[in-house]
Amino acid sequence: MKRRGLSEKELIADLRKRFKPSDDSVILGIGDDAAVFRPGDMPLVVTKDMLVEGVHFLPDHPPHLLARKSLSVNLSDLAAMGARPRFALFGLGIPTDTENDWLERFFRSLSGIASEHDVTLLGGDITEAPSLIISLTLLGEGKDVIRRSGARPGDAVFVSGLLGEAAQGLELAKQGIMWGAAAGSDRFLKAFYDPVPQVALGCRLAGHKVPTAMIDISDGLSVDLGHICEESGVGAEVEAAGLPISPELRQSSPAAEEMALHGGEDYQLLFTVSPQVLENLTRIPLGHKITRIGSITEGEGMVLIKADGSRQPLVPKGYQHFRA
Amino acid sequence: MKRRGLSEKELIADLRKRFKPSDDSVILGIGDDAAVFRPGDMPLVVTKDMLVEGVHFLPDHPPHLLARKSLSVNLSDLAAMGARPRFALFGLGIPTDTENDWLERFFRSLSGIASEHDVTLLGGDITEAPSLIISLTLLGEGKDVIRRSGARPGDAVFVSGLLGEAAQGLELAKQGIMWGAAAGSDRFLKAFYDPVPQVALGCRLAGHKVPTAMIDISDGLSVDLGHICEESGVGAEVEAAGLPISPELRQSSPAAEEMALHGGEDYQLLFTVSPQVLENLTRIPLGHKITRIGSITEGEGMVLIKADGSRQPLVPKGYQHFRA
Repeated sequence: MKRRGLSEKELIADLRKRFKPSDDSVILGIGDDAAVFRPGDMPLVVTKDMLVEGVHFLPDHPPHLLARKSLSVNLSDLAAMGARPRFALFGLGIPTDTENDWLERFFRSLSGIASEHDVTLLGGDITEAPSLIISLTLLGEGKDVIRRSGARPGDAVFVSGLLGEAAQGLELAKQGIMWGAAAGSDRFLKAFYDPVPQVALGCRLAGHKVPTAMIDISDGLSVDLGHICEESGVGAEVEAAGLPISPELRQSSPAAEEMALHGGEDYQLLFTVSPQVLENLTRIPLGHKITRIGSITEGEGMVLIKADGSRQPLVPKGYQHFRA
Repeated sequence: MKRRGLSEKELIADLRKRFKPSDDSVILGIGDDAAVFRPGDMPLVVTKDMLVEGVHFLPDHPPHLLARKSLSVNLSDLAAMGARPRFALFGLGIPTDTENDWLERFFRSLSGIASEHDVTLLGGDITEAPSLIISLTLLGEGKDVIRRSGARPGDAVFVSGLLGEAAQGLELAKQGIMWGAAAGSDRFLKAFYDPVPQVALGCRLAGHKVPTAMIDISDGLSVDLGHICEESGVGAEVEAAGLPISPELRQSSPAAEEMALHGGEDYQLLFTVSPQVLENLTRIPLGHKITRIGSITEGEGMVLIKADGSRQPLVPKGYQHFRA
C-alpha cells in the first residue's frame, strides 16, 4: 500500500530490524511470503483476536496503548490455557493518511510488550483500511492446557486480582477523563487502557495442575463464568461479599459490585479448583493475589448470594464495547 | 457481539459442528480461549493476510467467493514457500446487520475450500466492525522452504500458468460485468474472484528442490520479480515474447502485455531455476504448465526485452487495489 512518508519497503526494512528474531527456533522471520519456525516437543496453543476502531477503541486511542492492548488480549487468552506465549503475527489495517509517527509508536510499543513476554514477532500484513483494525495471532506452548470444560460440582471458584477496575476505567474514558488528569482515576484508566495479562500466573497454575477449568475475564465475570458452567455442564454460586473489589472502586462508584460482576476487560483469570487441590493451595507459590468467590454446583444456572444471605439468579450480561 | 438472528452462542455451536477437526493432531478446536494442536517434526510455516471491504473487494462481493479468496491468498503464500497447508484461524469483522444467510454461505464455502486443501479450521474470532474485514492465519509444514533470496545470476526465471487473467477480470468487474453474463468474460472474472492457489505445484517444486527462489504473484510480475531481485541481490531480464498470455486475453484487451507484466492477483508461482537443475527439469513431473520468461542477471535492476529485441527498463508498478 502507499502511505505518507515511509514507503512499504522502508517500513518492512524497519520492521525487520526492529523484530530481528533472537529466538533460535525462528528459521525465517519478517520479509518473505511466510515465516518459518521449528516447533518444540510441546503442543502448540494458538489464538487470534481482532480489535476494531469505533468498536473496541476510539480513533484517538494512543498507538502505544493500542499495540500493548492488542497483544495483551491475546496473551490473556494463552494465560487462560496455562500456555507459554512464543510467537506472534500482526495484521494491521490502516487509513492511508496514517502518519509515520503513529506507526513508529505503534511498533515500538508492540516490540516492547512482545519482549516483556519473550514473544517473537514472526511477521504479518499491513494493508489499507477505511479505519484502524488490529488483528493479532499468538502462538504458544502448553504441556497440560486448562480447558473451560473441566469444572465439577464442589469445586471452588477463584479469580485473580481485582474486578471491575477496567469497567470503571471505561466509564471515566466515556466521560472524557484523560489518563494523567487525576491520580484517583489513573488506576482505573490504566486497568482499561493497559490491562496486564496474567501470563505468569496462568503458567504457574497450569504447571501445578491447580485449575480444573480456566478462562480469562474479557466479557465480564457473569459471562465468562457462564462459559465455564456451560462447557462443564455445571452451575455456580457466587458470593457478592467475596468479590475482590478495591476500596478505591467502592469509593469511586456506587455501581462497584455491578462492575465487578458484569464489567468486561479486566483480563483476570477465573478458575475452578477441586476440593483435593484446595486443601494444599496455600502451599503452592503463585506469586499473585487470588480470591475465592464461590463454588461450582450441580445442575445449570448461576446464583448470586448477596451480603444479606439472600439468593438471586446471576444472569450473564453481555459486555458492551466502547461504542455503547 | 449481537447480531440479527443467530446468537453468538448458536453461531459458535454451528462453527464447532462445521469445523469439527478430523485431524488427529488437533487436541482442541473451536470453543475455548485458544486452539491446541500437536506439531509434527517439520518446521512450521505461518502466514497472515487481511482483506478489507472497499480496498480488496466491493461490499456486494458474494460471501462464498470472499471466503474462498481469503483462504486462497494465504494458501498461495504457503505455496510460494513450498509448504503444505495444515491449519487455519479466521478473524472476521462484520457489520451488525450482517444476515445469517451471509454467514452461513461464508462459512460453508470456507469449510469447502479448507477441505479441498486438507486444512483444518482451528478457531478464530468474530467481532463487530463498521465494514467487512477478513483476516486469515494459515499454518503449514515445510521441510525445505524456498525463500525469495536464493536467485543467482544465470538462473532461469519461470512462471506457472497464465498471466494477466485476473487483471482483465478486475477490469471487467470494474465495468460492472457480472460473472455468468457472457462466456467470454467468465474465465477472467473467475481468475479474479476465485483464483486457484498453486499449492500442489509449490510442494512438488520444493520437494524436487527445483527453485532457487520462489514467490507468488499477488502484486504483479514486475513487483514480485522485483522482490526476488532485491532479496537475492540480483537483476533480471524478462522476454516479452515469452510471457504466458492466453489468446483469449490478447483478443479481449489491447493491454494484455501490460496486464501480464503488472497486473496483480494472478496467484501464480514465480521461481528461479539453476542451470544444473534446468537441464533435468523436463524429467521432473510437475503436473502443471510452467513457462520460462527470462533469466537472472548480475547487478541490480530489471530489463524487459521486447519482441523486436529492443531493451527497456522493467520498472515495478505497484498493483492498484479494487478501490483504484
